[in-house]
Amino acid sequence: MKAIILWIAIITCGVRADQYYYTKKYIDVPLDHYSYTSNLTFKLKYLVNDTYHTDRGPIFFYTGNEGPIDTFAQNSGFINDISPDFNALIVFAEHRYYGESLPFGNKSFSSPQYLGYLSSEQALADFVYLINELQKTYSPSGTKGKLPVIAFGGSYGGMLSAWLRMKYPASIVGAIASSAPIWQFQDLVPCDNFYRITTTVYNVVGGSTCVDNIARSWKDIKRLARNDTGKANITKILSLCKPLKTDGDITDLISYLSEIYINLAMVNYPYPTNFLAPLPAHPIREFCSRLNKPYKNDVEMLSMIGSAIGVYTNFTGTTKCNDIGDPDGPIDADGWNFQSCTEMIMPMCSKDNDMFENYSWDFKTYSDTCFKNYQVRPRSEEIPILKYGGKDIKSASNIVFSNGLMDPWSGGGVLSNVSSTVVVIIIPDGAHHIDLRGHNNLDPDTVKIARQFHVRHIQKWLYAYKLDNSMNRPTVWSV
Amino acid sequence: MKAIILWIAIITCGVRADQYYYTKKYIDVPLDHYSYTSNLTFKLKYLVNDTYHTDRGPIFFYTGNEGPIDTFAQNSGFINDISPDFNALIVFAEHRYYGESLPFGNKSFSSPQYLGYLSSEQALADFVYLINELQKTYSPSGTKGKLPVIAFGGSYGGMLSAWLRMKYPASIVGAIASSAPIWQFQDLVPCDNFYRITTTVYNVVGGSTCVDNIARSWKDIKRLARNDTGKANITKILSLCKPLKTDGDITDLISYLSEIYINLAMVNYPYPTNFLAPLPAHPIREFCSRLNKPYKNDVEMLSMIGSAIGVYTNFTGTTKCNDIGDPDGPIDADGWNFQSCTEMIMPMCSKDNDMFENYSWDFKTYSDTCFKNYQVRPRSEEIPILKYGGKDIKSASNIVFSNGLMDPWSGGGVLSNVSSTVVVIIIPDGAHHIDLRGHNNLDPDTVKIARQFHVRHIQKWLYAYKLDNSMNRPTVWSV
Repeated sequence: MKAIILWIAIITCGVRADQYYYTKKYIDVPLDHYSYTSNLTFKLKYLVNDTYHTDRGPIFFYTGNEGPIDTFAQNSGFINDISPDFNALIVFAEHRYYGESLPFGNKSFSSPQYLGYLSSEQALADFVYLINELQKTYSPSGTKGKLPVIAFGGSYGGMLSAWLRMKYPASIVGAIASSAPIWQFQDLVPCDNFYRITTTVYNVVGGSTCVDNIARSWKDIKRLARNDTGKANITKILSLCKPLKTDGDITDLISYLSEIYINLAMVNYPYPTNFLAPLPAHPIREFCSRLNKPYKNDVEMLSMIGSAIGVYTNFTGTTKCNDIGDPDGPIDADGWNFQSCTEMIMPMCSKDNDMFENYSWDFKTYSDTCFKNYQVRPRSEEIPILKYGGKDIKSASNIVFSNGLMDPWSGGGVLSNVSSTVVVIIIPDGAHHIDLRGHNNLDPDTVKIARQFHVRHIQKWLYAYKLDNSMNRPTVWSV
Repeated sequence: MKAIILWIAIITCGVRADQYYYTKKYIDVPLDHYSYTSNLTFKLKYLVNDTYHTDRGPIFFYTGNEGPIDTFAQNSGFINDISPDFNALIVFAEHRYYGESLPFGNKSFSSPQYLGYLSSEQALADFVYLINELQKTYSPSGTKGKLPVIAFGGSYGGMLSAWLRMKYPASIVGAIASSAPIWQFQDLVPCDNFYRITTTVYNVVGGSTCVDNIARSWKDIKRLARNDTGKANITKILSLCKPLKTDGDITDLISYLSEIYINLAMVNYPYPTNFLAPLPAHPIREFCSRLNKPYKNDVEMLSMIGSAIGVYTNFTGTTKCNDIGDPDGPIDADGWNFQSCTEMIMPMCSKDNDMFENYSWDFKTYSDTCFKNYQVRPRSEEIPILKYGGKDIKSASNIVFSNGLMDPWSGGGVLSNVSSTVVVIIIPDGAHHIDLRGHNNLDPDTVKIARQFHVRHIQKWLYAYKLDNSMNRPTVWSV
């Protein structure tokens, strides 16, 4: 049984060359928006770029994910690219309990008493609260009516964008939800979708030999690790920071490798990027080029894998060793782990037809692990469906769901139109929310088309808003 | 300045002859649906009538108000009347912190630490939770698909029905929201609507002399009450249980009288009822018949008022004296008062053109009173608008808002169609949610038409649900 791996959370900042300019700001928001046992507030961080904002231009509002907001601001250039044409104010809001937005400082993760206010619904209410303040602050004085807001988000941030529109449609006029696996809950989709799609990506991009090597390797690694010599060999050839010692270390190693393979699929972009890690263009192609022949023995297997993972762990050439105990890097994995144990319960399993170790979904075991680690249990597997409606989202409106079919998370996404206003754009060769990234000359046409699709819907929503609200003077966007 | 009066809450059970049969049940629900600091649960009460439920008939779900649920079950006979035709399961769910549904027993109201989990959003989540359990319990074994649910509610319960559909559209297919003042917030409607409409009702039904007498009386009562003889006279002629002593007592008396006048308008039904109190048919007509000539002196004024309020306080002839200190009767007024101090902030004011004492809305004073009484302050006046969207509800669907124009609360209600699926039916001569009451031979045609309107929409919603969900066998309702 693998450890609970919380894929979305694995965001390492690495070396970042900031490309987009933002002013850092903070707003006091209520700790608890839904109950009144306490009147505490805390400082929520957000980033603002008002360079392009003129007249009554809209607010483009990124609903922050499970990590420091700066990472997302630097990796969602699409919003920046289109803002001048809309005269938009750009805001990236951090999600509570991530980055600097810690309600109880360094005590925030110490127990459910402090950590318990971390939930998607509280985060949505933070966003509503912040949006309201922004609308008051940035409306030109003397004008009436609220500035319209478009929400953007990728991955969990995309789920939040979609949910924000569903739950608070008066706060935003529409949402661009990119790679948002809002159906990765209970039995809404097969639990093996994620690993199966990941395997498909490797097959298509890296070739079947690469996949076969990975599929074979688990058994060999575990056999090798049975004795101390084998453990030492693995430690050495994979450049691990700490020597493998216990069975738990082996489990951690397997999780570590699995995460790397998955992350590579998520960020298999056609140009060099620095989102989950500094990476070359087409990283899986590069990765699999180092695993492109059947290995003959354990040493060869380890050497090839060691070389291949270097694409992810050491593209800059500055990594001294690989730390399997800290796969999440500088991120507060405790935050997402806690969310996964309370509301974001995403069943995952791995079967024979994928390249990962078999892994069955067992809610009881999952719940026990949650209790051991965080003193909470998911109340039931159906909680997220009760909260957000599961597949019954036809009464929502003004949401674009975009999914790259080469993204492991697309298996939990909305892949066909739900209604005339809850619509889908597919990027057949796209990885994880590539459409939210800034323009790149190497973008495939499918990504360009998706971005045009987004722009057209944003125009439509804003135009409808303009018609619905008698404004003092003509707005600047046009359709 | 009047005390904060929380009109909706004034529900006295009085002598009740139970007309409708229900089984009393309880379900354990989480104390906090939106945070995870505690894993406590409590018993929420609900009433079930499965007499008419066959096959895959829908669930008719009443979203309980700020009072014991039994009162509403006995005063919402419309649901019972139409259930046989729909083969419906009838459920009346109690609202947390009212009736028997006290999360912390008799400690529930002792401090914000216990009382803080009282909020409309927590109540909505309770309902979602209960609906899900009902759908599992009452679906015929071997069949797939959830039983469709229609929500019903009157007054605050109607607000909850509408909000339940807005926030959790996957849980209910539509809502009948009767006399639901969802716009009685901040500046969405003029703050004097409520008192103005009440005055209009008295003018139309009782005549201008009645209104003039009431309007004149406030000054005279206050003048009389300046000395002890006057206080004693008032006490005696109005049959007060406790002698008037302080200035605070006079304020309480004025509030008490105001509440009676308002309550009479709310329940000015054309046949005898027992909702807020045991009452004759057309109670305002009866009330004003005792105030139908200009009074000549204080004693006549007090005698006339004393006689008139007897219509409300002593229709049964068994009331020994009038208790102005306990206008709310057996209800947990602390519950609604707390809600009014946290989220249900409903600005009210009274101006020269109504029959009540002038009373201006002052948020600061309101907030101070809240803090004094409940150790909480409303975070801002706009909280309910941020939560529920204010007037921007056009993205909702499948809601019928009904309003009687002779209901003081209609001034905060939705009075014209919002969209093709959020629609309105007006009952020109109707009082507070009369359409939810059981059939009565004295019902005016306008009420019958409203009920037909409800039935037609319920049929439409259920038929759409049937089309949307491939069911195992034909459903029983027809369109």
